[in-house]
Amino acid sequence: MALIVQKYGGTSVGDPDRIAAVARRVQHTQAAGNQVVVVVSAMSGETNRLTALSGSVHPEPPPRELDVLLATGEQVTIALLSMALARLGCAACSYTGSQVQILTDNAHGKARILEIEQTQVSADLNAGRVVVVAGFQGIDEHRNITTLGRGGSDTTAVAMAAALQADECQIFTDVDGVYTTDPRMVPQARKLTRITCEEMLEMASSGSKVLQIRSVEFAHKFRVPLRVLSSFSDTGDGTLITFEENPVEAAKIAGIAFNRDEAKLTVQGVPDQPGVAHHILGPIGAANIEVDMIVQNTAHDGTTDFTFTVHRGDYTKARQLLQHTAQQLSAREVSGDDKIVKISLVGVGMRSHAGIASQMFAALAAENINIQMIATSEIKISVVVAEKYTELAVRTLHTAFDLDDDTQPEEEQR
Amino acid sequence: MALIVQKYGGTSVGDPDRIAAVARRVQHTQAAGNQVVVVVSAMSGETNRLTALSGSVHPEPPPRELDVLLATGEQVTIALLSMALARLGCAACSYTGSQVQILTDNAHGKARILEIEQTQVSADLNAGRVVVVAGFQGIDEHRNITTLGRGGSDTTAVAMAAALQADECQIFTDVDGVYTTDPRMVPQARKLTRITCEEMLEMASSGSKVLQIRSVEFAHKFRVPLRVLSSFSDTGDGTLITFEENPVEAAKIAGIAFNRDEAKLTVQGVPDQPGVAHHILGPIGAANIEVDMIVQNTAHDGTTDFTFTVHRGDYTKARQLLQHTAQQLSAREVSGDDKIVKISLVGVGMRSHAGIASQMFAALAAENINIQMIATSEIKISVVVAEKYTELAVRTLHTAFDLDDDTQPEEEQR
Repeated sequence: MALIVQKYGGTSVGDPDRIAAVARRVQHTQAAGNQVVVVVSAMSGETNRLTALSGSVHPEPPPRELDVLLATGEQVTIALLSMALARLGCAACSYTGSQVQILTDNAHGKARILEIEQTQVSADLNAGRVVVVAGFQGIDEHRNITTLGRGGSDTTAVAMAAALQADECQIFTDVDGVYTTDPRMVPQARKLTRITCEEMLEMASSGSKVLQIRSVEFAHKFRVPLRVLSSFSDTGDGTLITFEENPVEAAKIAGIAFNRDEAKLTVQGVPDQPGVAHHILGPIGAANIEVDMIVQNTAHDGTTDFTFTVHRGDYTKARQLLQHTAQQLSAREVSGDDKIVKISLVGVGMRSHAGIASQMFAALAAENINIQMIATSEIKISVVVAEKYTELAVRTLHTAFDLDDDTQPEEEQR
Repeated sequence: MALIVQKYGGTSVGDPDRIAAVARRVQHTQAAGNQVVVVVSAMSGETNRLTALSGSVHPEPPPRELDVLLATGEQVTIALLSMALARLGCAACSYTGSQVQILTDNAHGKARILEIEQTQVSADLNAGRVVVVAGFQGIDEHRNITTLGRGGSDTTAVAMAAALQADECQIFTDVDGVYTTDPRMVPQARKLTRITCEEMLEMASSGSKVLQIRSVEFAHKFRVPLRVLSSFSDTGDGTLITFEENPVEAAKIAGIAFNRDEAKLTVQGVPDQPGVAHHILGPIGAANIEVDMIVQNTAHDGTTDFTFTVHRGDYTKARQLLQHTAQQLSAREVSGDDKIVKISLVGVGMRSHAGIASQMFAALAAENINIQMIATSEIKISVVVAEKYTELAVRTLHTAFDLDDDTQPEEEQR
């Protein structure tokens, strides 16, 4: 008997009919001889409805209260799914984050899971019940309700799988797997049957929306086998995220990710002194703003330019903080741009293949696309270009690195 | 410094504007030098929306899961009201039933409060914060979410007031006080400035919807001064529910209540033996169906008729149970009627005034209204008549017992 954790997102539980369909799939999984834990998101549209409600009461609501509000979204879904399961004669029991005891830190809106209590959940599973858990939410040590931020339900699912030592964590979504890039952007994108966890991590952190980065990190850390599947089709095994360190026949490039959610900030003319980077990023971090790419050019004339990217939603706030810092540092000026896209090539095969970077830059140059920033890791190369080039750049690279699916004519896929 | 518990119902928090108005009133109460605990219901329409959702998933949802679903209604309101208070610069902290630790039994949908933890709430109050508590909900000893049933927010408010030894519990509603009878039925109904707790208890149990009976019971038991006020007007002191055992100038009749939510069931030809009443009502109680009036006539020919009333929603189920019992008892037949109304005269003055009952029966007879059942208590006389006579009977009695407000012409009040 295997223990399976399944996660269904907002679209998969978007209305009573879809909830009934999820219930049938869960029942089917249990009937096949598995114990099943189901993690669900709020019904699609619900989080937006709640956010709008809060906005009509307070333009910047206290984060603690916003979490209390948003957490109701998943609570509605766990109740409805448990009812739908009961209707099929399948015993089920719902749990809020508070009831499981998903203990998090107290960073409201982007809390991190610290610990999961599993006694009661295990008891229910052993009694033959399906356990339905509210994703996206937890409680801090003072029983304040916290939320994990958008996509947090994936994290909840993987964390539950890790805590329960599940055999597989299945993420059901509206796509049938991980593609070489977003098929809506590039019709020739190919579905991957497997991808390494490292690659998935880079893909996720580079803007591939299939899985949230934190859930992949969790899966990586706790060695949870993760599978991405479609909740709207019964066929296909989706994409398995593996732990192989050195897959034998790794392609050079697994996929191309892009992220339009970032904004770029530059402090120009910063004195080239030790401690400057910390001085600039300290207040940003203290304001709970996450920084992604960081680039600092070599100094000339005793000053340097310091550039980094943040989430677009944090752009205005970060820029305000930066003005203050720039004054303290006697920097020349602060500039920024929130119309950018980060495009990343990802692949473990990159380690053993030279020249990927130059091939990438050449392909972009051939289309006259100017590169604003470059960052690299062992298995990833990211560039920042103007947002308007997104589609052109991604398609160009997809073709340049032989990722196109040539088995299907382009017309059919459009 | 007084400690005030205020409760606002669904209509009072029905939209963001009304929530903002409640926030201003709460702030005003605090600014006047009081500590304030606010108990709120779900926004009007929300509970119905959630009930419809559950109905579309399961016609008879598991009660545990229905409670998980419904409890989100109040959770939304506490978050929004706390945000609205924050917007006014008024520090506030929301609590779900689970967070307060409102411990109840496990009778889902109609749970009873056993105990309220007050440490954290008191700490917040002493720190100058307004405490916003979700009405209607609690948790059982296993942390399952429970609800107290319709109107349970009143009960939560009184229970919080009792636990905190509040100076007053103010129930804000869409009426400006307790009337001699429903003003929508009788335009001449008068507002009472005060009413004894006993009378209010009988009014509530007889169908007056202003306060839930359990909240009045709680107030009575724990001597919580209770006041009914309008949340839509700033004038008037509403109606104070007092504890006077023998008010000096008690009117004979405080008011007339009526209840169309009941149904009548009769087992005919029951053998006149000891234990029969228990045999009939045992299964009804075991099915968690509450019985209101019980009438058994004197036996003749060794058999008797046993009649009682239940909530109309329990009619079908009770009738099924009764068929079974009737067979076991070899009773003649089971009959019933769910088109009835119970009309009650209530007043502590009744104790010292003879002839109220006969005056009541005479007034109804003069209008040719047939009385189907009669039940009396020390301060109440209730009759059951056909539902179609509701308006005629209530108006007739209101006039017969000098309750009409003669200061206002009838036309204006319509």
